[in-house]
Amino acid sequence: MQPGSTLLETLGFIAAVLTTLSFLPQALRIRRLGTAGDVSLTMYVMMVTGQALWLIYGLAIVSPSMIAANIVGIALVGWVTGMKLRDLRRARLCPPTAAE
Amino acid sequence: MQPGSTLLETLGFIAAVLTTLSFLPQALRIRRLGTAGDVSLTMYVMMVTGQALWLIYGLAIVSPSMIAANIVGIALVGWVTGMKLRDLRRARLCPPTAAE
Repeated sequence: MQPGSTLLETLGFIAAVLTTLSFLPQALRIRRLGTAGDVSLTMYVMMVTGQALWLIYGLAIVSPSMIAANIVGIALVGWVTGMKLRDLRRARLCPPTAAE
Repeated sequence: MQPGSTLLETLGFIAAVLTTLSFLPQALRIRRLGTAGDVSLTMYVMMVTGQALWLIYGLAIVSPSMIAANIVGIALVGWVTGMKLRDLRRARLCPPTAAE
């Protein structure tokens, strides 16, 4: 089958919703807590870089579901990565005092 | 470009290594601790189901990198899901005593 066929893209969009939304609980937790202290920066940087490459792959084969999945994925995983980087910068600029 | 072309599959394999290996720190942590207590079952079940659908998509378009990425991904994420289910079954069979 070719990327772009209706049946295949329906399958791809269901796959995209599942794999992308599985990152939502983590993002919502960080939003609620206001800190990304307990996520692995390495994991998220690898994931967002990988998703950027899958996006290029999806564009090259003209696969609507792969393109959509990776744009939404990059937004979600990129936001978590940004929150983690902000936490790390804050921790460097405002080190805990000896009393803490 | 067509799935299967050398340039595209090289890109896909790099993407696959990054997105798949980003799950490895979590799997290694569970292996070290012997418990999957702190991972979300919902997240992992959604992820493994989504990966199974992406695998079918990859098979349909004959994309070696998508097929490889999702087989390894299902093994890794499926193992974490299995560990979490084992924990939940143990917790049901052996509830903590009142003293704990």
